[in-house]
Amino acid sequence: MVMRKKTRVIKVGDVLIGGNNPIPIQSMTNTKTINIQNTVDQIKELIITGCDIIRVAVPDIESAKAIKKIRESISIPLIADIHFDYKLAIEAIKAGADCLRLNPGNIGSKQNVLKVVDVTRERKIPIRIGVNSGSLSKEKIEKYGVTAQGIVESALEHVAILEKANYYEMKISVKASSVPLTIESYRLISEKVNYPLHLGVTEAGTEFSGSIKSSIGIGTLLTEGIGDTIRVSLTANPIKEVLVAKEILKSLGFRKGLDIISCPTCGRTEIDVISMANEIKNQLKEYSEFDLTVAVMGCVVNGPGEAREADFGIAGGEKEGLIFQKGKIIKKAPEDKLIEELVVLIKSNVEK
Amino acid sequence: MVMRKKTRVIKVGDVLIGGNNPIPIQSMTNTKTINIQNTVDQIKELIITGCDIIRVAVPDIESAKAIKKIRESISIPLIADIHFDYKLAIEAIKAGADCLRLNPGNIGSKQNVLKVVDVTRERKIPIRIGVNSGSLSKEKIEKYGVTAQGIVESALEHVAILEKANYYEMKISVKASSVPLTIESYRLISEKVNYPLHLGVTEAGTEFSGSIKSSIGIGTLLTEGIGDTIRVSLTANPIKEVLVAKEILKSLGFRKGLDIISCPTCGRTEIDVISMANEIKNQLKEYSEFDLTVAVMGCVVNGPGEAREADFGIAGGEKEGLIFQKGKIIKKAPEDKLIEELVVLIKSNVEK
Repeated sequence: MVMRKKTRVIKVGDVLIGGNNPIPIQSMTNTKTINIQNTVDQIKELIITGCDIIRVAVPDIESAKAIKKIRESISIPLIADIHFDYKLAIEAIKAGADCLRLNPGNIGSKQNVLKVVDVTRERKIPIRIGVNSGSLSKEKIEKYGVTAQGIVESALEHVAILEKANYYEMKISVKASSVPLTIESYRLISEKVNYPLHLGVTEAGTEFSGSIKSSIGIGTLLTEGIGDTIRVSLTANPIKEVLVAKEILKSLGFRKGLDIISCPTCGRTEIDVISMANEIKNQLKEYSEFDLTVAVMGCVVNGPGEAREADFGIAGGEKEGLIFQKGKIIKKAPEDKLIEELVVLIKSNVEK
Repeated sequence: MVMRKKTRVIKVGDVLIGGNNPIPIQSMTNTKTINIQNTVDQIKELIITGCDIIRVAVPDIESAKAIKKIRESISIPLIADIHFDYKLAIEAIKAGADCLRLNPGNIGSKQNVLKVVDVTRERKIPIRIGVNSGSLSKEKIEKYGVTAQGIVESALEHVAILEKANYYEMKISVKASSVPLTIESYRLISEKVNYPLHLGVTEAGTEFSGSIKSSIGIGTLLTEGIGDTIRVSLTANPIKEVLVAKEILKSLGFRKGLDIISCPTCGRTEIDVISMANEIKNQLKEYSEFDLTVAVMGCVVNGPGEAREADFGIAGGEKEGLIFQKGKIIKKAPEDKLIEELVVLIKSNVEK
């Protein structure tokens, strides 16, 4: 339903970003990169959860070198997160990084930039330019304040440096910790460039607040057709970042997946909808990637209507409920058998 | 930063909705309304959490009558949720309901509508017209499918019935369980009417998915200036609905409140940001309604920058960290004293 802006397509490892390509989910490890085993273990867990591209911090030369063994042990592209030191960038690419996160205006002389671009050009390694509200230069803050214009002007300066070196394999992020500022910054840069955009709200906070801030910021932009890859930043286990990102994409129709629609319980509710919805979600885990809508409704007022839209559903009455399939009542069942019968029905109808 | 559409102002109890008024948070009890004590207890807990307006289900005449004692025991306006039976609406108003949720096209004859409007007009009781994707009539589905146009046409029919009776005290909701359909429906109705809009994604699902769907749906619309009151629907304790609603409004600058910005931890992190951010949030609970930004940053790369924007902040180095106030370093402290010293600093600077 959303018309995406057609951006330039770049390639991070074997993942295409931009244009009409699916929107990949990114996350970042929070292990020490030099601790190769821990880092690989975390990445493998993230892959199972649904992470498409992983980023690791590269604060020193040992971390850059560690990328070699990490990259060999994982099945998804790896981005090296570099600040200030161009030598780390070169070392990371030599070790097998598929992309750099690096701001070319912050690595010193033009010479340094050219040294990096020489290597990225040879291997077609894209660079993510990432400007954050928190890392704006004093100069930009004096001229623009911490505004969308300041953030975007700063990003465009970095872009210009790469373009001057005839290098165009890049994606851009313009994150802020304020949601409205994030939205405004991305809207503005989206008008000015055609490079793919990496969406995120930075320093979004704890799991609860951060999920909500990220959902609003990333979600609003995606509904406007802006954004080619996303990262949810949470002060939490990165697994949570991937789960929230998946849910955002699913909510907007960018990914398929099991969708449980369930009513908020109210004074009309005749069955225990809360525990039943959670239990059904749990019992249908193996279908989590399926394009399947299951309704769990507590009463006759909304129940039959919603169940009509869903592939399968239950609607509860007093001590017993109805089981539906695509709007047709299949059977009645007592409350304590409802879930069991629903799950049996789904398993016998949905091929894996 | 967001320009809100200027809608007509209505009054639910003593709460103004629409125009330039603050956006009230609504929730709905999930106790049996006839169980007065449980219902009052739940509402009181919701009020403490931040609920501004409460709705209760009125499935029968006893529930309508129970409103009297409930309303006398609580300090916020109460909305009676009525389906199909106009007598319940009249009884609920007599018992002290401040607003009805009722679709005038679904309560039978024109006579019935006039009987209800006679009573609402006398007491200036507004009516919320609430059309859901799931409760669309067969006729509308045949004509439009389950589309934004179908939902909006259905809502406009109900609106026309009240307008024909010269009654204009109303607000409207056009919820769907699909986020894109919800957004599209509200955008469309917002172009067609000037009544205040009650935002929500219906049957949004369990706490996790429902929070994300609601954040995207409600958040996107609010950033477009659409929406005058919100309800987050979750298949969960309604307390959670209010917490999510507050966070959505806070994220977009519609409410003040303690904002913890904290970095996602990465391989650079030198302090335990996850537990520190949660601990600080916990220790500053009494400041949760204050307009206060506190940064918890794990490293020197982003730390000082973000702490500059925040009112207070800590940035972690190896085994010790820095404490900031409005960009100025106040002191160094060892890791195990960082939170304590930060909280002392905040308490001595922020007047309650």
